[in-house]
Amino acid sequence: MPELRKDPVVGRWVIISTERARRPSDVAGEPVRPTGQHCVFCEGDEARTPPEVLAGRPGGSPANGPGWAYRVVPNKFPALRIEGDIEPAGEGLFDRMNGVGAHEVVIETPRHDGSLATLPQEAVTDVLVACRDRILDLKKDPRFEYILIFKNHGEAAGASLEHPHSQLIATPIIPIMVAEELSGAARYFEMKERCVWCDIVRQESRARRRLVLQGDGFVALAPFAPRLPFETWILPTRHRASFEEAGVEELRGLAGLLGEFLRRMNRVLHDPPYNFMLHTAPLREPPGESYHWHLEVIPKLTKVAGFEWGSGFYINPVPPEDAAEALRAPSG
Amino acid sequence: MPELRKDPVVGRWVIISTERARRPSDVAGEPVRPTGQHCVFCEGDEARTPPEVLAGRPGGSPANGPGWAYRVVPNKFPALRIEGDIEPAGEGLFDRMNGVGAHEVVIETPRHDGSLATLPQEAVTDVLVACRDRILDLKKDPRFEYILIFKNHGEAAGASLEHPHSQLIATPIIPIMVAEELSGAARYFEMKERCVWCDIVRQESRARRRLVLQGDGFVALAPFAPRLPFETWILPTRHRASFEEAGVEELRGLAGLLGEFLRRMNRVLHDPPYNFMLHTAPLREPPGESYHWHLEVIPKLTKVAGFEWGSGFYINPVPPEDAAEALRAPSG
Repeated sequence: MPELRKDPVVGRWVIISTERARRPSDVAGEPVRPTGQHCVFCEGDEARTPPEVLAGRPGGSPANGPGWAYRVVPNKFPALRIEGDIEPAGEGLFDRMNGVGAHEVVIETPRHDGSLATLPQEAVTDVLVACRDRILDLKKDPRFEYILIFKNHGEAAGASLEHPHSQLIATPIIPIMVAEELSGAARYFEMKERCVWCDIVRQESRARRRLVLQGDGFVALAPFAPRLPFETWILPTRHRASFEEAGVEELRGLAGLLGEFLRRMNRVLHDPPYNFMLHTAPLREPPGESYHWHLEVIPKLTKVAGFEWGSGFYINPVPPEDAAEALRAPSG
Repeated sequence: MPELRKDPVVGRWVIISTERARRPSDVAGEPVRPTGQHCVFCEGDEARTPPEVLAGRPGGSPANGPGWAYRVVPNKFPALRIEGDIEPAGEGLFDRMNGVGAHEVVIETPRHDGSLATLPQEAVTDVLVACRDRILDLKKDPRFEYILIFKNHGEAAGASLEHPHSQLIATPIIPIMVAEELSGAARYFEMKERCVWCDIVRQESRARRRLVLQGDGFVALAPFAPRLPFETWILPTRHRASFEEAGVEELRGLAGLLGEFLRRMNRVLHDPPYNFMLHTAPLREPPGESYHWHLEVIPKLTKVAGFEWGSGFYINPVPPEDAAEALRAPSG
């Protein structure tokens, strides 16, 4: 059973998940799927994943067989376990909790060589709607406080399988990085009575130096203080706290802008490994006025070294103005 | 000129340092020194580094020539620049500051194939004393608030040169990760009137399950909530807030324990890439009662992926009790 443990000084939780050491890539650094071996996420091999919890089956094909456009399945090596109540416990001055949560995989396309950058806008929309629907479903479980959707693409970005997929992890606590955003945004709102991300979108849309793309209700911009070269944020231009409240029309706009951004990134940076992380409001009592959901995309071009690990301070060799300028050129 | 920029939501500063993009390894991911090319840190090539600011020259050899045991030189590609006053400025809702600071390299041995794991205890002591003396010297500069000493060993840990070295960066602000430790430790002290790290050392020395090594005034332990497999902290067993107040005798104790720890880590994990980071109190008004300096060592065995980047939550497949048990076996 995985376990949640809290650092007694900074309050950061970690997941101790021995289950995952069974994934050879975890400690050894070897890719899970040697070339030539069959991919468990490809069409025709549905029996090798846990049974699907959601799938797009345009032809009405039966569950867990071929004929799908996307599938959502529980992670075979989950970081957290769906079973059990939350049981906090102490060990002297330390705090722990059993590792209750959900860990699902969104297989974005049956095609091993597909990608969110090359799928038609409608297919990307369907994947985003599926993510939203999984949040809406898991939100009914009162044990969960937060759901993070993220993507690891490429080995350097932590992917253990090549087939295009995103992941979802539901946690019984609000992750520290989201908690820091929430409290920073609440402080800003208290001072200004405005959402900080709305202010950023307005200022950057006017100044344009860090603007990458705009359209269909969304904007992609290089943040003023990016941790990594070419870090990019995609935000709805209108104020929205919770991703799961987005309608299909809104998600179609996101799908269009995300696809275009990824094509430009792939062209400028030669198909880099990358991560994206969806930051949305917590499931319970979302701070509707001060929080603004957004997608953070970080290509993995540099290594995080001791200075960053020790300080939380990032050294970034590429000014966001230069990154935005390079990415503004159309992907054509 | 490098620039410091602050994220308006979470208050995290980053260094935008275009100077460093000249290091080919930064954005391209290529090692700086292809095999066969001469190393700029090796003995005999002193002219290719900036002039030394400190060196151990047992035979009294002249500066910037051969005959040294260790050398401290300014970094040729500094993340921050030593020249200029600190000039905070705004850009709409954003905050920036010119990138004033110091960035030095501690070349630990003239031998390209040397290492802190294999150098005699006296040589490691001399390196640690040199680090301390550089802090004491830079502390006189009122522009600096913090000095971080860290090591990148191996390409996966962000090293761009193979020759054994550590680095020092002095910053005009307290890094966010240290600020979080300071406020967490202050909260604990307010509640308990004890230092949280002193309590950790006491509890772990009694329980022994996460204890790795003890001796000469220091302890190495696997933290209760480690971010990464085999993360290890080395702390003075007596309460000490500021590293730079350590005497030579204390640093000899640290040198002995650090060398022994690194030998064990290298044996158990097959010479892994690793980072270490020295966390010490800020230079000005150090919180003497609540802060306790320590060295954090993190072997780089796994990749940091989207979940960690998005949540600040780490998934660690190796329980610290198992890591400590493996590391307790003598290196003999």
